[in-house]
Amino acid sequence: MAKNIQDHPVLAQSSPRQALLEDYLRVRRFSEQLCVPLVTEDYVIQSMPDVSPTRWHLAHTSWFFETFVLSSYMPDYTSPHPQYAYLFNSYYNSVGERHCRPKRGLISRPTVQETYAYRRYVDECVSNFLSTCTDEALTKAAPVVTLGIHHEQQHQELMVTDIKHVLSCNPLHPVYQEQALSSTTPPSALSWISYPEQLAWIGYEGDGFFYDNEGPYHREFVDAYQLGSRLITNGEYLQFIEDGGYQNPLLWLSSGWNTVQSEQWQAPLYWEKHEGQWMMMTLSGLRPVEPTEPVCHVSYYEADAYARWADARLTTEAEWELAARQVPTEGNFVENQQFHPVPLKKTVDPIKPEQMYGDVWEWTQSAYLPYRGYHPAPGALGEYNGKFMCNQFVLRGGSCATSVTHIRPTYRNFFPPDARWQFMGIRLAREV
Amino acid sequence: MAKNIQDHPVLAQSSPRQALLEDYLRVRRFSEQLCVPLVTEDYVIQSMPDVSPTRWHLAHTSWFFETFVLSSYMPDYTSPHPQYAYLFNSYYNSVGERHCRPKRGLISRPTVQETYAYRRYVDECVSNFLSTCTDEALTKAAPVVTLGIHHEQQHQELMVTDIKHVLSCNPLHPVYQEQALSSTTPPSALSWISYPEQLAWIGYEGDGFFYDNEGPYHREFVDAYQLGSRLITNGEYLQFIEDGGYQNPLLWLSSGWNTVQSEQWQAPLYWEKHEGQWMMMTLSGLRPVEPTEPVCHVSYYEADAYARWADARLTTEAEWELAARQVPTEGNFVENQQFHPVPLKKTVDPIKPEQMYGDVWEWTQSAYLPYRGYHPAPGALGEYNGKFMCNQFVLRGGSCATSVTHIRPTYRNFFPPDARWQFMGIRLAREV
Amino acid sequence: MAKNIQDHPVLAQSSPRQALLEDYLRVRRFSEQLCVPLVTEDYVIQSMPDVSPTRWHLAHTSWFFETFVLSSYMPDYTSPHPQYAYLFNSYYNSVGERHCRPKRGLISRPTVQETYAYRRYVDECVSNFLSTCTDEALTKAAPVVTLGIHHEQQHQELMVTDIKHVLSCNPLHPVYQEQALSSTTPPSALSWISYPEQLAWIGYEGDGFFYDNEGPYHREFVDAYQLGSRLITNGEYLQFIEDGGYQNPLLWLSSGWNTVQSEQWQAPLYWEKHEGQWMMMTLSGLRPVEPTEPVCHVSYYEADAYARWADARLTTEAEWELAARQVPTEGNFVENQQFHPVPLKKTVDPIKPEQMYGDVWEWTQSAYLPYRGYHPAPGALGEYNGKFMCNQFVLRGGSCATSVTHIRPTYRNFFPPDARWQFMGIRLAREV
Amino acid sequence: MAKNIQDHPVLAQSSPRQALLEDYLRVRRFSEQLCVPLVTEDYVIQSMPDVSPTRWHLAHTSWFFETFVLSSYMPDYTSPHPQYAYLFNSYYNSVGERHCRPKRGLISRPTVQETYAYRRYVDECVSNFLSTCTDEALTKAAPVVTLGIHHEQQHQELMVTDIKHVLSCNPLHPVYQEQALSSTTPPSALSWISYPEQLAWIGYEGDGFFYDNEGPYHREFVDAYQLGSRLITNGEYLQFIEDGGYQNPLLWLSSGWNTVQSEQWQAPLYWEKHEGQWMMMTLSGLRPVEPTEPVCHVSYYEADAYARWADARLTTEAEWELAARQVPTEGNFVENQQFHPVPLKKTVDPIKPEQMYGDVWEWTQSAYLPYRGYHPAPGALGEYNGKFMCNQFVLRGGSCATSVTHIRPTYRNFFPPDARWQFMGIRLAREV
Repeated sequence: MAKNIQDHPVLAQSSPRQALLEDYLRVRRFSEQLCVPLVTEDYVIQSMPDVSPTRWHLAHTSWFFETFVLSSYMPDYTSPHPQYAYLFNSYYNSVGERHCRPKRGLISRPTVQETYAYRRYVDECVSNFLSTCTDEALTKAAPVVTLGIHHEQQHQELMVTDIKHVLSCNPLHPVYQEQALSSTTPPSALSWISYPEQLAWIGYEGDGFFYDNEGPYHREFVDAYQLGSRLITNGEYLQFIEDGGYQNPLLWLSSGWNTVQSEQWQAPLYWEKHEGQWMMMTLSGLRPVEPTEPVCHVSYYEADAYARWADARLTTEAEWELAARQVPTEGNFVENQQFHPVPLKKTVDPIKPEQMYGDVWEWTQSAYLPYRGYHPAPGALGEYNGKFMCNQFVLRGGSCATSVTHIRPTYRNFFPPDARWQFMGIRLAREV
Repeated sequence: MAKNIQDHPVLAQSSPRQALLEDYLRVRRFSEQLCVPLVTEDYVIQSMPDVSPTRWHLAHTSWFFETFVLSSYMPDYTSPHPQYAYLFNSYYNSVGERHCRPKRGLISRPTVQETYAYRRYVDECVSNFLSTCTDEALTKAAPVVTLGIHHEQQHQELMVTDIKHVLSCNPLHPVYQEQALSSTTPPSALSWISYPEQLAWIGYEGDGFFYDNEGPYHREFVDAYQLGSRLITNGEYLQFIEDGGYQNPLLWLSSGWNTVQSEQWQAPLYWEKHEGQWMMMTLSGLRPVEPTEPVCHVSYYEADAYARWADARLTTEAEWELAARQVPTEGNFVENQQFHPVPLKKTVDPIKPEQMYGDVWEWTQSAYLPYRGYHPAPGALGEYNGKFMCNQFVLRGGSCATSVTHIRPTYRNFFPPDARWQFMGIRLAREV
Repeated sequence: MAKNIQDHPVLAQSSPRQALLEDYLRVRRFSEQLCVPLVTEDYVIQSMPDVSPTRWHLAHTSWFFETFVLSSYMPDYTSPHPQYAYLFNSYYNSVGERHCRPKRGLISRPTVQETYAYRRYVDECVSNFLSTCTDEALTKAAPVVTLGIHHEQQHQELMVTDIKHVLSCNPLHPVYQEQALSSTTPPSALSWISYPEQLAWIGYEGDGFFYDNEGPYHREFVDAYQLGSRLITNGEYLQFIEDGGYQNPLLWLSSGWNTVQSEQWQAPLYWEKHEGQWMMMTLSGLRPVEPTEPVCHVSYYEADAYARWADARLTTEAEWELAARQVPTEGNFVENQQFHPVPLKKTVDPIKPEQMYGDVWEWTQSAYLPYRGYHPAPGALGEYNGKFMCNQFVLRGGSCATSVTHIRPTYRNFFPPDARWQFMGIRLAREV
Repeated sequence: MAKNIQDHPVLAQSSPRQALLEDYLRVRRFSEQLCVPLVTEDYVIQSMPDVSPTRWHLAHTSWFFETFVLSSYMPDYTSPHPQYAYLFNSYYNSVGERHCRPKRGLISRPTVQETYAYRRYVDECVSNFLSTCTDEALTKAAPVVTLGIHHEQQHQELMVTDIKHVLSCNPLHPVYQEQALSSTTPPSALSWISYPEQLAWIGYEGDGFFYDNEGPYHREFVDAYQLGSRLITNGEYLQFIEDGGYQNPLLWLSSGWNTVQSEQWQAPLYWEKHEGQWMMMTLSGLRPVEPTEPVCHVSYYEADAYARWADARLTTEAEWELAARQVPTEGNFVENQQFHPVPLKKTVDPIKPEQMYGDVWEWTQSAYLPYRGYHPAPGALGEYNGKFMCNQFVLRGGSCATSVTHIRPTYRNFFPPDARWQFMGIRLAREV
């Protein structure tokens, strides 16, 4: 894979119209670059209901632009494939019937080639529209184009995690990208960084893009707390395993313990024991578990149980957000093309938390609920976030599969407590 | 059923020791009085995994006192039925193996008579112990006895709701208690009561009994809000039904809509349409739906969808608690022996909300999570509350199956969002 | 339990009308005698979908007489409980809607007492009808009464096996009937009895009662064969277990092996290993496995795998029937009130097979299919047998839960290949 | 697709060795010709557990030759891909662990190209072996090669039916092969052909290839019977549908009726009603149901219910075999490349039954059981047939997806009674 695929050229003189077009093209191109290592067969498979075939992601993101931009704002646009709407609508009840999610892997046509042709067609139409539409039309359409760009970035992350899951189902352990393991030294011991009590403003405020669930900007009272200086490592998590963590019901939420038993969990997803040695499936193939890396592919249940075992707890959303605002949005993102969390290098005792961004999403103990005063956007795009505010927990900070241009201190990701196939890890907190 | 079974005699001169014993005996007796209308066969049935057979409730609550009081604090106590521990432990992993919950309805022995004999034995031992133990032993045991009393009251509520579910499965519509329908007039229109923004103290503070999940007493910032003046009625809910509420996915949470479809919900639990007329199964048999009664047996999903349809929202825990502190703990409780919510008498526009206590538990939009600084009690009793803090929502205020001596402004009940067999209803809130 | 409850008094002078009435009353009474050891709670439970609550059996058999005799042949008969038809119809689509089979255990009313009252009412009406109806009416009704008697005897067998299953679900191991274990000596070694090839007439021919599936009387060609001289014992089956029978897929039918794995079968139903010792749940409580008893509660899969392991096979229906015609209908039947198979007394090498009747039903390798020319009876009673001719195997010979007056050489019992809760065992056959 | 792909050149002078090699290569080539219309994506999908991805069929049949021929008989053979054994073993417990059947569709590698390379490698090795091995080795290996050839032909049929199922899951209705519908005239009315009673020899006798389940050659007594002169047509089946066949439980086996209700069957598989018109998915796309074609894709349950409705029954295996021996093995086979049953042309009253071979497999009412004296082959190949003799029914005569070189009068195909995705149809029989 070519490096620097999402670098930001200095575009001082570019107009907003041109900047939007360039953003659009850059992000669309990146989806396809992520697919360079794939063979045609890889694109087709849905390895579990949560996973979508790569081809579906490529088509669905195009359908999104077609439906919400081209059909909505481009006069006389007609789709070359109106029947795709049924196949590639994900969950928008307002725009019509759709193909059943768990059956996305039963569809062999349109082929991968036809899907790329569909992308090209949509890209040409969108480019054309953005280049030639009136300023008035642009004003209306631009927010939706921007949403579509961020939507596509979300699907890029899913493409990475879904293809990892697909490849992991194959006993031959196929490799997505060869990657040498850099030799690593243990990170410094976990320390605690303190924050005072405060009546804080939480949520997005500003002029940039944000999802509706990041607002409204509102006040919350936050007690004094301490945050773990870095992510929990595989080595630390191994101690939990070896201490019988997966055998002790008293460490677990009740539904977590039921899941451990019914799913027979013994370790994070993708870990397998081979002749007494813990191995893990990565996008670079099967490898020994590296103790210095951040632990990854743990559910909320496991993160919560680990925290209890460690005599700590997970952070709340607000605690995390207050701390994150004070550090730059830097880290191991998808642009690094590691597709895997990396060990922390620094060793001196930090005064600000490390690894807040990138590497792994950090489970918080906050349920995914509307902020006070939240109202979803009107129309179909109002189905984007709000209707999922039930039985999910918030994760923060992005991962090695997230784009650096996609993450913010206020960004709220969310998954059910038993989900593990995303790059999900653990940061601890505790009372003062 | 005899009236005034839980009245509070003036016990001005009774000692704390004697008061505790009297509380114990009164509550234990009440469990049995709730069973007076039952035939032996009714005690045995588990009509769904959430429901327990009445006999199980009677035995489990006795096992609770046996395990946590008698075995813990009474020297040389030996159980006459040590094998009951396996059958009647509910979910305490720390005190041993237990019978699988969904199989509670497969056990015909111990019989109902043997179960009552077991209760009597436990009652005699506890009475004996409370009467004769040293003050030191009493100091240690009293909090656990008190917890056991409240625990038994919780199971009394479950006995009422579980037996209702059992009887509802019978096409013959058996009656638990005949009850004349008082003629009713519509309650006054819903109005809104306003509360200012505040940095509030939330949770239990005081010397009385409370569950660990009601603490710690802590601060939360609450924006200004308005609370609906009374509960939503069947008549109002019927408008939601007739407006196609159960057919419109845009009103529902995503998992709620999935549930509506997979369970084919068309109305609250226990409602059936007979020749165009909505009927409901009650503990007094099958009756027409009475429009003036509070709507009942709705899930969180339905309460949330109704609120969205009504252009409002559910309350938060904190909002509810702040309002509830200002009204007396009065209402239609289990002591009324209606076993059903009753219509609000027509009132002038209130300045305080009506029906905050009793009738139906009120779904809040707050996920059931630990308060900041929460730590479960040490030992087995720490499994009482904390391990359920996942994928449940908080309900407040008690119901027609709750004892008036059991409820508090800070009381947090919790159920998964699809639960409906408790007496659960709707109060609206909205932004100012 | 009183002995001799089904003895046959010499009724030389009794008229056919009177004989039918006496048969009716004797069989009806026996159903109730089987319930003497039960407590009310035992009657209510359905421990798996195949099992029906005892109360249901008592009511269903009464409903059968009410529907097919009283309502059909008694002028002006009206049911005192027309709503029972919905609850107690088993599977007769032609006579109306019915309660869902797996939900029979959710119904607490009518109570046991009410069910007995219903039985008494039906018995009085049937007695009255049989005593007073015209000869013409009797001629029409008598075959249905006789069918109802045999139908009730089938349910008596199910009552025994169902209550055994219900009690086995209870960790307290309740006892239905105390029974001393007679000391036993090993039976003589299995020998083989030879039969020549023949074009044989198979099926019922004669004037007595038989089920429609036992006819028509027809010819089948049967090659020469050998039959095992007696049933396979627990001791022999233990050798199969100890030889790794449950771990070797090559011994099993493919669907049998899938069942072994999904159900984690290690031994016959009701066997449990306690500290290295095989125990079995019986109607007399938990007991060590007695090696000299016939093996029991094995599925077709296990019987077939055992036969393969023993280098033999199961018999065919025709082979069994030809051999059975030559021995008297004697054995360990329900009238013995053992409710368990008994060891064969040591004998010299037999010239006719032992234990052909009673003790355990013998799995044959014949699928349950219609005999050539079979037509079900017209009307609702045509649903009795024919519609189950799919994915079941035939068993022959009756068991310790069958009445001696109910069995015949031509009697075809049938169950799916994974059923185990009936008294089912193994007889081997082989080619010459 | 090229025509005449399986024609039989006159090989008068070819040696048995050479004939075997030519058979091998011809059949191997035909598997690949069946794939010509496929795109890569089509090869990957498993649309239900019964279906295997095309790529799996191509690899599994090669693994069969590798395992049972090359590894067994070719000195020093080593597999280039030993790990394929795990992936491509179907159900042979004796030769090792294998990948779980329902997960065949989760594997994207080896790719289609790699699979073809694997085939070529195996083909070269087998060709080499057959050309150069000693006569002694050939004598041993030839029966297994022949079995492998017939095994591959069975998988060719599955490839056709599986790819039909895969394409049918796609709402875009992809076409495997364009095919003009020939205009058709109704076949003559069904007539009945009579056969006398006889003690018949049944099963394979001769020198050619046959599966072990076709033997031993043995005697069965067959009563006089009549056979329907031709297959049942769509037009006739439509009358059953329109007469309420799918709504009347009295026409169905009990488990059939349960399946109709749980699966909501209203018509054969692949039928859909569009605006009042019955359409069917075929390998040539979606088409109106043609009344003159044989009805197809019906389960045993539907065939049995149709026969009952038509006051007839299905045939037995023996009846079918006796009639089939008297007609030539001709019909609409896969070599015709219709991939669909075709209407009967002849119109005069026949004296021998029409359409006995090809078009559709004919459900018999015979359960799939061992013939008297049956013993599976020793070793792993003994797992080929015998272990499936449970809960399946026999079908006879081959279909439009069967090779003419694969079918025989004694050929026993078998499927569970609810299977529909094979080309399965209906021939009636009745008593004289």
